[in-house]
Amino acid sequence: MTQPYVKLDKNNAAMLLVDHQAGLLSLVRDIDPDRFNNNVLALADAAKYFDLPTILTTSFEDGPNGPLMPELKALFPDAPYIARPGQINAWDNDDFVKAVKATGKKQLIIAGVVTEVCVAFPALAAIEEGFDVFVVTDASGTFNELARNSAWDRMTAAGVQLMTWFGLACELHRDWRNDVEGLGTLFANHIPDYKNLMTSYATVKGRA
Amino acid sequence: MTQPYVKLDKNNAAMLLVDHQAGLLSLVRDIDPDRFNNNVLALADAAKYFDLPTILTTSFEDGPNGPLMPELKALFPDAPYIARPGQINAWDNDDFVKAVKATGKKQLIIAGVVTEVCVAFPALAAIEEGFDVFVVTDASGTFNELARNSAWDRMTAAGVQLMTWFGLACELHRDWRNDVEGLGTLFANHIPDYKNLMTSYATVKGRA
Amino acid sequence: MTQPYVKLDKNNAAMLLVDHQAGLLSLVRDIDPDRFNNNVLALADAAKYFDLPTILTTSFEDGPNGPLMPELKALFPDAPYIARPGQINAWDNDDFVKAVKATGKKQLIIAGVVTEVCVAFPALAAIEEGFDVFVVTDASGTFNELARNSAWDRMTAAGVQLMTWFGLACELHRDWRNDVEGLGTLFANHIPDYKNLMTSYATVKGRA
Amino acid sequence: MTQPYVKLDKNNAAMLLVDHQAGLLSLVRDIDPDRFNNNVLALADAAKYFDLPTILTTSFEDGPNGPLMPELKALFPDAPYIARPGQINAWDNDDFVKAVKATGKKQLIIAGVVTEVCVAFPALAAIEEGFDVFVVTDASGTFNELARNSAWDRMTAAGVQLMTWFGLACELHRDWRNDVEGLGTLFANHIPDYKNLMTSYATVKGRA
Amino acid sequence: MTQPYVKLDKNNAAMLLVDHQAGLLSLVRDIDPDRFNNNVLALADAAKYFDLPTILTTSFEDGPNGPLMPELKALFPDAPYIARPGQINAWDNDDFVKAVKATGKKQLIIAGVVTEVCVAFPALAAIEEGFDVFVVTDASGTFNELARNSAWDRMTAAGVQLMTWFGLACELHRDWRNDVEGLGTLFANHIPDYKNLMTSYATVKGRA
Amino acid sequence: MTQPYVKLDKNNAAMLLVDHQAGLLSLVRDIDPDRFNNNVLALADAAKYFDLPTILTTSFEDGPNGPLMPELKALFPDAPYIARPGQINAWDNDDFVKAVKATGKKQLIIAGVVTEVCVAFPALAAIEEGFDVFVVTDASGTFNELARNSAWDRMTAAGVQLMTWFGLACELHRDWRNDVEGLGTLFANHIPDYKNLMTSYATVKGRA
Amino acid sequence: MTQPYVKLDKNNAAMLLVDHQAGLLSLVRDIDPDRFNNNVLALADAAKYFDLPTILTTSFEDGPNGPLMPELKALFPDAPYIARPGQINAWDNDDFVKAVKATGKKQLIIAGVVTEVCVAFPALAAIEEGFDVFVVTDASGTFNELARNSAWDRMTAAGVQLMTWFGLACELHRDWRNDVEGLGTLFANHIPDYKNLMTSYATVKGRA
Amino acid sequence: MTQPYVKLDKNNAAMLLVDHQAGLLSLVRDIDPDRFNNNVLALADAAKYFDLPTILTTSFEDGPNGPLMPELKALFPDAPYIARPGQINAWDNDDFVKAVKATGKKQLIIAGVVTEVCVAFPALAAIEEGFDVFVVTDASGTFNELARNSAWDRMTAAGVQLMTWFGLACELHRDWRNDVEGLGTLFANHIPDYKNLMTSYATVKGRA
Repeated sequence: MTQPYVKLDKNNAAMLLVDHQAGLLSLVRDIDPDRFNNNVLALADAAKYFDLPTILTTSFEDGPNGPLMPELKALFPDAPYIARPGQINAWDNDDFVKAVKATGKKQLIIAGVVTEVCVAFPALAAIEEGFDVFVVTDASGTFNELARNSAWDRMTAAGVQLMTWFGLACELHRDWRNDVEGLGTLFANHIPDYKNLMTSYATVKGRA
Repeated sequence: MTQPYVKLDKNNAAMLLVDHQAGLLSLVRDIDPDRFNNNVLALADAAKYFDLPTILTTSFEDGPNGPLMPELKALFPDAPYIARPGQINAWDNDDFVKAVKATGKKQLIIAGVVTEVCVAFPALAAIEEGFDVFVVTDASGTFNELARNSAWDRMTAAGVQLMTWFGLACELHRDWRNDVEGLGTLFANHIPDYKNLMTSYATVKGRA
Repeated sequence: MTQPYVKLDKNNAAMLLVDHQAGLLSLVRDIDPDRFNNNVLALADAAKYFDLPTILTTSFEDGPNGPLMPELKALFPDAPYIARPGQINAWDNDDFVKAVKATGKKQLIIAGVVTEVCVAFPALAAIEEGFDVFVVTDASGTFNELARNSAWDRMTAAGVQLMTWFGLACELHRDWRNDVEGLGTLFANHIPDYKNLMTSYATVKGRA
Repeated sequence: MTQPYVKLDKNNAAMLLVDHQAGLLSLVRDIDPDRFNNNVLALADAAKYFDLPTILTTSFEDGPNGPLMPELKALFPDAPYIARPGQINAWDNDDFVKAVKATGKKQLIIAGVVTEVCVAFPALAAIEEGFDVFVVTDASGTFNELARNSAWDRMTAAGVQLMTWFGLACELHRDWRNDVEGLGTLFANHIPDYKNLMTSYATVKGRA
Repeated sequence: MTQPYVKLDKNNAAMLLVDHQAGLLSLVRDIDPDRFNNNVLALADAAKYFDLPTILTTSFEDGPNGPLMPELKALFPDAPYIARPGQINAWDNDDFVKAVKATGKKQLIIAGVVTEVCVAFPALAAIEEGFDVFVVTDASGTFNELARNSAWDRMTAAGVQLMTWFGLACELHRDWRNDVEGLGTLFANHIPDYKNLMTSYATVKGRA
Repeated sequence: MTQPYVKLDKNNAAMLLVDHQAGLLSLVRDIDPDRFNNNVLALADAAKYFDLPTILTTSFEDGPNGPLMPELKALFPDAPYIARPGQINAWDNDDFVKAVKATGKKQLIIAGVVTEVCVAFPALAAIEEGFDVFVVTDASGTFNELARNSAWDRMTAAGVQLMTWFGLACELHRDWRNDVEGLGTLFANHIPDYKNLMTSYATVKGRA
Repeated sequence: MTQPYVKLDKNNAAMLLVDHQAGLLSLVRDIDPDRFNNNVLALADAAKYFDLPTILTTSFEDGPNGPLMPELKALFPDAPYIARPGQINAWDNDDFVKAVKATGKKQLIIAGVVTEVCVAFPALAAIEEGFDVFVVTDASGTFNELARNSAWDRMTAAGVQLMTWFGLACELHRDWRNDVEGLGTLFANHIPDYKNLMTSYATVKGRA
Repeated sequence: MTQPYVKLDKNNAAMLLVDHQAGLLSLVRDIDPDRFNNNVLALADAAKYFDLPTILTTSFEDGPNGPLMPELKALFPDAPYIARPGQINAWDNDDFVKAVKATGKKQLIIAGVVTEVCVAFPALAAIEEGFDVFVVTDASGTFNELARNSAWDRMTAAGVQLMTWFGLACELHRDWRNDVEGLGTLFANHIPDYKNLMTSYATVKGRA
């Protein structure tokens, strides 16, 4: 009756980054901009770190929505990049769906702007086609908390799993022993509190 | 086990605006009045823009609840207008149900004041009769957040889909190419941040 | 798959007021005390107005938990009053369950202090025995929002319907024409904003 | 020892609107954008209504800061318009100061974006030169509440009087009898709650 | 250099209740309506209890602002009642000022709606004429916290003392022994938490 | 269709405390540190009081994550203590799972830091293996409310029951008569408001 | 023109703890009870640690206000203890003022319940008599933030200095070298985050 | 009577960074860690950019307070670095005061952790010695908002001017024409919203 536990698997997951565009980002007001900016870059770094097939897409980037965040483009220079000519739901764009299917992965990780449209629409569509969908809540943003909560309710009713970028990285990594340094660096670069712990620890240990 | 994705379809949807009356609006305290006023008018403009059959109804408008917001009446001069003589649940009023069924649409979009009564009651009743129901959360208001959250819980348990007016407009439109200017104008008129993007964009482009 | 709409019916509903005791009330910090006090009295007035069989129960009222709110006792002098000798879950007390079953009603309306214990425990137990359970969220209180949200999640998963006292009164009344004055008075006594509407309306009309 | 009451006087006041530019507006996050947009337009309408000499100024409007809000330009087509070539503090721009002094007014009303820079800097400078300065708090915006509070503390310590657009309009008007309809229209256009009161009142009265 | 301590003295204080009108109350959104309604009635009860000369005034009560709260009228049937024909600042109305001066008191306690206009204007004017002014912050309301904070800053800079109705009652009473029962009743009627303490205390003591 | 009521049973429950480590605790920012510290100790005291088999586990305690809270170690000197060498999900550690199964209990109570990883991962895994899982929400902490809410949504969809330490203690105890003094002491030590009630009660009674 | 810096001096300061009574504590709702309880005990521990002359006083402790927090009584068994027979302002009680003056100290540290009465009244009175007054904001509590802010405004206008218990302890101590262990223990006992730092540090250092 | 406007002057200002240590940072809970980390680095970058003499100091960095943030040390390798042996108030350390005076500047900019101690103490002491003191509110942090507000009240009463790092940079820079690129880069690196504006602008302009 309840939903089974689908564990994220780095060998079976693809990352879809939808419409993180300079103009649209000014619409995001349910997360503080410092934190949101950090979360999006952390998620992208995680995708890079776990070597997940990643797909970039934008909506109307020649208009007021503005260009993709330059850091994302720089981080994934060879990723499929679908500048959608008009479709609001990325899943309505054939090139996008083809790119997704070409990854051969069954688990889709989605983040984007704004949550109830650019994230929710393809998330709901992908579930209909049998994918397991994980939405990264803190790397997705929207107008206000009311809009976010409405979108979460609609997506969870459909079977989407909600995660943060940190939870996602932990579930993909499984075991620190796979690479202590790599994961530690990822965390230190994006979690000030964690960096402080590492700094203090290294200092005391170094003095010993 | 989870809920299937029912996509809003502009050819199969009707809009029900329930009890947005001048007196009742003073009870709404879970949304800032500037924002709420804007959201209701945005939803109405969207109904107009997508040419959805729209039904207006009020409760006891000759008493303290007060008259319908004049802008709604002006926007839909020919819409069915059911001034209910006493029924709290609009769905208990035969004329209202007849008007709904006369639209021949299967998807019902509902917004109103107050959320846990004027919206939730007809929403729950319509689902019982097999309609797909979409409640517009940010064009519906109530006494406080606790009341809103209770109402959302009850409605989502019954299968209602929660959306904002912006998400709804996007899902109805599907593709910007259907009419870039029309949708852009709708957004600019009701999203100050989006208007700013358009202003800046037009200016820089105009200077080039 | 989703939950059917069980409409409150004044001929088939009983009201259970659990542990609204002077001492326990000082633990309630998820609602402002002025508002909470008002909500509990509003719910009690509604029970009286709709003539619902009402059951009062307390836990350890001779100790620090303190006596029942005097207003409740005064309002329902002849209601079954079960001072539980020790059971935390009222449903573990045979007299309480007997009193509930003696009402012959299938719909149970529950409110109390604190939400995750005195309300949630009997609510969950009653559902197991086939009752339809409606918890009145704004006449139930607890330590903080986190505790409230946990309790709501647990109860809604089990099939409890969450309502406010206002939504409940509206669903029980069905039609203003059943008694305009009575319902209006109930609202005016407990909703300052509504009273203001009535005052203004009566004044302008009176002058006419 | 305390500050004397300097009453706003419509014959002795000028309005300075500083840097309400499309780009900078996306930095404002201490007020909801719907409300902020409304407040700025309300203040501008008030300046128009009371026929106050009004000065517009922008900072670097050819760059990312973007053009002035078009509504402001449209409302004051003949107002002095100082596009500052570089000065961050408008008071460091001679043309601006000259325009201010040319009004011959001693009371300066200032609003702008962002509060701690574009508003606070000229406010502090104008006080040093002996003007009475009134900052319109709800038509000025900044990054977050912490920034706003810091700016308020600095300005009030220097003798700035903080007002809202509504308080300002009331103090300028002094007596409803000067023009009931005009002030009522100003309020109705920018205060949804007030408009609702007027709608209800007119309806009941009209029916009488 | 700092402000001297002016202690409220029940033999030298008058109470001014400004514009607590049914329509204007719907504009108050910086305090929850249940709490605000309670605070205003508590303040009025305190004025009655301490037998302070009390003056009522309204602004345009025949229009949308609506009539005075009926409870205030009922509580002070013989108080001077100045229905101002148009003056926004009550202090601009000669009858009002005459009534204030006729009390012969030097300490003025002011509360009203909305804070930055109906309270702040007469408060600032009265200070200019040498009165000691105490504003009752929790029986005065306005559009939002930003407006409230602006008004507080302006008033405290001018020397107004900010108090709550509870602090005011305590400072007027000085010593419980003057009348334990009377003050206890005042508190119990308006502070649910205090009433609970009294209920528990009386019960345990009564059983002893 | 809805979830059955699984009542906590002190003879059939085990307590899993996951990663309450000195370093990781500095990451917890969704609960005030005074309250969180108190909640964790209250939960541990409850486990002790009800004599539940308890299992302690840590992640990388020799690194920046830091050592287990010393109070937990002191309270359960003989409990299985699994210092995981690398597994992020405690359930991926065979010793941990063996220790859990060795308790022979079917109900697992889980709390830890951070919620969406150290709590959610073993909770989801345990449910897959047929355990009944209860997560103690207020003794689990994470980065912010958004992260907490995402985690709650994912866990409740999988069938986890969310409880607070207080609700849990009440459900385990069932009846005050089992030990009034013991439960009262547990509450007084961790709920200041409850301690105050007991102090007042004892004083008045003692004087009698 | 601004206020000179009066530094707290442990040889010239006395501590006044006013009305921290079990009943009155239930009125405190502007601080979370876990934190408030902790703050009051931390302040008392600081007074003990710095060996400040300390005076305890209560108001009507035989009635609903309830007895003094037992921990305070236990910590200062020999301190002057003035159970006031009726005076609301402790400064109106001669025994209290005599006890204050008998300390021979010029700096008075005051904390109590509720802030705008039991703290503000004696604070204002003591300033009138030439004392330097420091109010400990986080060991003083009241009904809500609005009441607290009003009280702060009134007190700071009169020259009261606002401090927290932590700032106060630091200013009294001046130099860690006076006693590292003592101050560290005081902090660890009342600041969970600080305790965590000490635990981690000691562990890493111990392993070295 | 009010405070004169002392304008920050880059030729007459020094920057004091007090106790931004890895351990102490975990105590900061009145600002989100992502934002706080960003603010501190932005302030440091500003000091570098304007070439202000900068002084670093720490308290007990060999103990649990932990080492200075490594970024600060890296940014100012040649700055005076005073590791205080015990003085809590940096101003009580002769080397620190000597270093301050050696800069020959009259305007001191101070930020640090925690606000009411490491910032407020030296700020108050420096004012006593005739310096103009500017506290950077958003690069200073403490336990909670109550502690922050107390500290602000005490500092502003003494004449401290409160600023944010952004306001400070603007006041130091005076005119964009001094260096458009440099200031733009500083803003883009630390204000995501501003970076977005620059990205969009450059893109549209580039395409032209």
